Amino acid sequence: MKIFRVNMTDLTAQIEDVPAEWQGLGGRALTSAVVAKEVEPTCHPLGKKNKLVFAPGLLTGSQAPNSGRLSVGAKSPLTGGIKESNAGGTASQKLARMGVKALIIEGQPEGDNFYGIHIDKDGIKIEKEADLVGKGNYEVIQRLVEKYSNQIGVITIGQAGESKLTAANISVKDPDGNIRSAGRGGLGAVMGSKRVKYITIDDNGAAPVQIVDSDKFKDAAKVFAKGLLEHPVTGQGLPTYGTNVLVNILNEAGGLPTQNFKTGRFEGANKISGETMHDVIESRKGKTSHGCHAGCVIKCSQIYNDKDGNYLTSGFEYETIWGFGADCCIDDLDIIAQADRICDDIGIDSIETAVTVGVAMEGGVIPFGDGPGLLKLLGEIKEGTYLGRILGNGAGFTGKALGVTRVPVVKNQGIPAYDPRAVKGVGLTYATSPMGADHTAGYSVATNILKVGGDVNPLGKEGNVELSRNLQIATAAVDSTGLCLFVAFCILDNAEAFQAIIDMLNAEYGISLTADDVTELGKFVLRTEREFNKAAGFTDKDDRLPEFFSDECPPHNTTWDFTDEEIDEVFNF
Amino acid sequence: MKIFRVNMTDLTAQIEDVPAEWQGLGGRALTSAVVAKEVEPTCHPLGKKNKLVFAPGLLTGSQAPNSGRLSVGAKSPLTGGIKESNAGGTASQKLARMGVKALIIEGQPEGDNFYGIHIDKDGIKIEKEADLVGKGNYEVIQRLVEKYSNQIGVITIGQAGESKLTAANISVKDPDGNIRSAGRGGLGAVMGSKRVKYITIDDNGAAPVQIVDSDKFKDAAKVFAKGLLEHPVTGQGLPTYGTNVLVNILNEAGGLPTQNFKTGRFEGANKISGETMHDVIESRKGKTSHGCHAGCVIKCSQIYNDKDGNYLTSGFEYETIWGFGADCCIDDLDIIAQADRICDDIGIDSIETAVTVGVAMEGGVIPFGDGPGLLKLLGEIKEGTYLGRILGNGAGFTGKALGVTRVPVVKNQGIPAYDPRAVKGVGLTYATSPMGADHTAGYSVATNILKVGGDVNPLGKEGNVELSRNLQIATAAVDSTGLCLFVAFCILDNAEAFQAIIDMLNAEYGISLTADDVTELGKFVLRTEREFNKAAGFTDKDDRLPEFFSDECPPHNTTWDFTDEEIDEVFNF
Repeated sequence: MKIFRVNMTDLTAQIEDVPAEWQGLGGRALTSAVVAKEVEPTCHPLGKKNKLVFAPGLLTGSQAPNSGRLSVGAKSPLTGGIKESNAGGTASQKLARMGVKALIIEGQPEGDNFYGIHIDKDGIKIEKEADLVGKGNYEVIQRLVEKYSNQIGVITIGQAGESKLTAANISVKDPDGNIRSAGRGGLGAVMGSKRVKYITIDDNGAAPVQIVDSDKFKDAAKVFAKGLLEHPVTGQGLPTYGTNVLVNILNEAGGLPTQNFKTGRFEGANKISGETMHDVIESRKGKTSHGCHAGCVIKCSQIYNDKDGNYLTSGFEYETIWGFGADCCIDDLDIIAQADRICDDIGIDSIETAVTVGVAMEGGVIPFGDGPGLLKLLGEIKEGTYLGRILGNGAGFTGKALGVTRVPVVKNQGIPAYDPRAVKGVGLTYATSPMGADHTAGYSVATNILKVGGDVNPLGKEGNVELSRNLQIATAAVDSTGLCLFVAFCILDNAEAFQAIIDMLNAEYGISLTADDVTELGKFVLRTEREFNKAAGFTDKDDRLPEFFSDECPPHNTTWDFTDEEIDEVFNF
Repeated sequence: MKIFRVNMTDLTAQIEDVPAEWQGLGGRALTSAVVAKEVEPTCHPLGKKNKLVFAPGLLTGSQAPNSGRLSVGAKSPLTGGIKESNAGGTASQKLARMGVKALIIEGQPEGDNFYGIHIDKDGIKIEKEADLVGKGNYEVIQRLVEKYSNQIGVITIGQAGESKLTAANISVKDPDGNIRSAGRGGLGAVMGSKRVKYITIDDNGAAPVQIVDSDKFKDAAKVFAKGLLEHPVTGQGLPTYGTNVLVNILNEAGGLPTQNFKTGRFEGANKISGETMHDVIESRKGKTSHGCHAGCVIKCSQIYNDKDGNYLTSGFEYETIWGFGADCCIDDLDIIAQADRICDDIGIDSIETAVTVGVAMEGGVIPFGDGPGLLKLLGEIKEGTYLGRILGNGAGFTGKALGVTRVPVVKNQGIPAYDPRAVKGVGLTYATSPMGADHTAGYSVATNILKVGGDVNPLGKEGNVELSRNLQIATAAVDSTGLCLFVAFCILDNAEAFQAIIDMLNAEYGISLTADDVTELGKFVLRTEREFNKAAGFTDKDDRLPEFFSDECPPHNTTWDFTDEEIDEVFNF
């Protein structure tokens, strides 16, 4: 495989050998290693010194189930620290089959032009793009499909990324031309700052990914697929209800942040729950289960149609529904689905945006519960009005603009869908992850609430430091394989399935990793990221939750009560 | 003297003895010591845990010339670090005569009411205020004078402070009912967050400040006054042209930041210079020289009238004129004077706001040179529109909102009127001062450009680290005495005048300070402030100038070329 490098300052590209130190890396391990090596930690994240890195995971492009994730890395304009965000869709597998170990985009052109980058069997082309500038992601993908074919992979930014809003995300085409997103940390703004509107990948004529021991690989893949299908979360809960199965669960647990994190339970929860959504989708002839890339056996996505039975959105996740729903006190699933679609289209993180709107509601911009007002606010972001620019720069920024002090962010990134006072393990992840507040960085909810991989009391302290630490390490490793993080539900309970991942890696590359090696990989990734952040100016003071979490959260009336010393133990490994 | 403490949570007040550790402190030394001791460094600056501290200087209230400065301290909502900002006006001398060593305002009331605090011979009263909410500082002062008398001291916030905009300042009434400002660091937002609209001080019936050795004091005061009157800067330059004498000097030196710090020379400099301004003021029957408090012998202020001969503004400083002028490419002194007046009235730092407008112009909000556009933008701040909220939160915030990367800030505070590439000593002050970018924190311009206190090449490196270090230490001491910083021009060249300050301190308090003790006081202040910032999460990475200063600055085409190690030497004492 090769490093594909695009220099946007002089609009040149080259294909390089992979340095030895990067050869055993993929996905997040690779994007973080590249950023750590090549990006000055104190540089302006939207300036010429930042770099945007795309990397398929170690197993991506193979027949390993659920291995199609694409990692995207850079210095984040939202957090000011290192960032990896990953997404499904079809681009990653195509990049892997084209032999792209990583695509590194660096520099910045003079002037106002945007560009498209095309990768195909002839190499890399950089072309000026005018027609699609200012267009949303749905139209960009549709027009590129029309121009090339439905078989191409597309990576694109919407209006938010063009405007360098720091909540802007990067979108990836799914098999149906719909949208998956590398959502968090404002990576779309970095792509916009490099004046890249989209990247197309045409893998026509590419050979399959090389597997050293093909038989061993197939056997392991079978064991792994069986494990996923047999686990109650990955085999039943997620395929049936999507991630939105969590609304009722978190509401019951008193950890569903409501009204900008004022309480942990939402009156209207049932109206926006996964169970309700399932029935709505069925009644409107949508799809309750849908995979975002070839080889997905979990199929947690869905096709959510509007009242007239027309496609409205997909990849409609719990965190988005929680955010525009409970956190903004909106109990209308159709409004939330429209908000999700708009976020996908303008290319902005639906989690950050939902948290932001909650803060804006607290600041009096619109009242809590105002669904039509929400859609209007998203229109402001699309149009790039001044209010839109405030909102599009995220919850921390909006809190400052409005003088609001209850602002749920860590490292300036919005806190997602699980109140840290009621789900303390994930609170430790929010506080300490080098990514800023991110549930996926160490999903302690699994063990705190779903009782997967053990049972740690979500309201107490005991065991949560170890839980967050171990899950952050495991996640960093999983994020490097290209596997969807949801495989973790299975492998936390099923040692055989976990071993199958190691067997697939060993079979593909002809190596002999052990479980300890995988743990070491996770630790290497986290250490690399922490070092970058430290060099960028982060200290232990950045590993803290906002002041207001020392206020009680109903219904349990618990507070965030970890001491600084306890929090700092999470990264003691 | 006593500590006056107001608790805005329960609307109570008390008068306390001064703890031993604070007895030898005043001004900045005292505000920083109180903030360091009583404010949690990681707290939300606009939340209930921050405190706002007012302290007259050690010599304030006495007959010492130019000793009427009022220090204001808090955790800054603009920088996130400790902040002291000081102002002239009449409040400080009145507080000192009332025996107020420091006034500490803490807590935060529930609800939307604003309050006025009244200090008089009967103690402290806290009263609900409705009529003056939403009013500008000029009207607030006028109405309070009508209600009480012209003899009261007034400390107030305008609409910007009420809105908790982080560039909001705190205004202080001058002898004529006009406005002086504790400008930098957003202290007006802290006052707004405590719901205090104004503070009145009625010192009717107060005894003069006690002087232990009155004869010795008078002798020293005479020597000091003579020194000030004889020095060319404090005796001639400042009284004749005001601080705006600097426009032509800095333009000539190639260090007048122009067009958002693109170059160091402004074509229209002569139209906005101190010399031009002097003639305009005379022709309109204003005053070219005016003191902001009783006992000022420098009288650098002025009364600037409009074309019809009506009062327009006063305290019309070089940095404001540079900012709205050269940095925004506006060469119309009347427009700039109107901008200054509006800033005073709505209570927003004219330096931060000017730097902000330069960034907004770069971001395309209005074109460079658009004077009427500038006034319209200030109107947006006053009205609290979303654009106004962006601008009112300063240059760093506005840069983020607009995706602009050339943003001249350090610790998120706008860089004032001297390009660090052409005046390197002050660049080191910008980088390292615990206050964020602030020329007054260690005014190396004096020695780099004006050749006061020696001659250090402004374009080279040699001697600048020591210069910035020594001036920061000296400034921290001067800021603790209540003396106007402009006395430094004199005492840098005149050892007798410096000794006179020490003599006045010793005579007033019956102590025996030496010059070394004064230096130690300065070091104590800086160490206290640095420690606070460190505990708030600051590192050496925060002591850096923005990336774009490595680009060349015409006409000298010099760059900011200090290494990190060299910069870090400034605080090696």
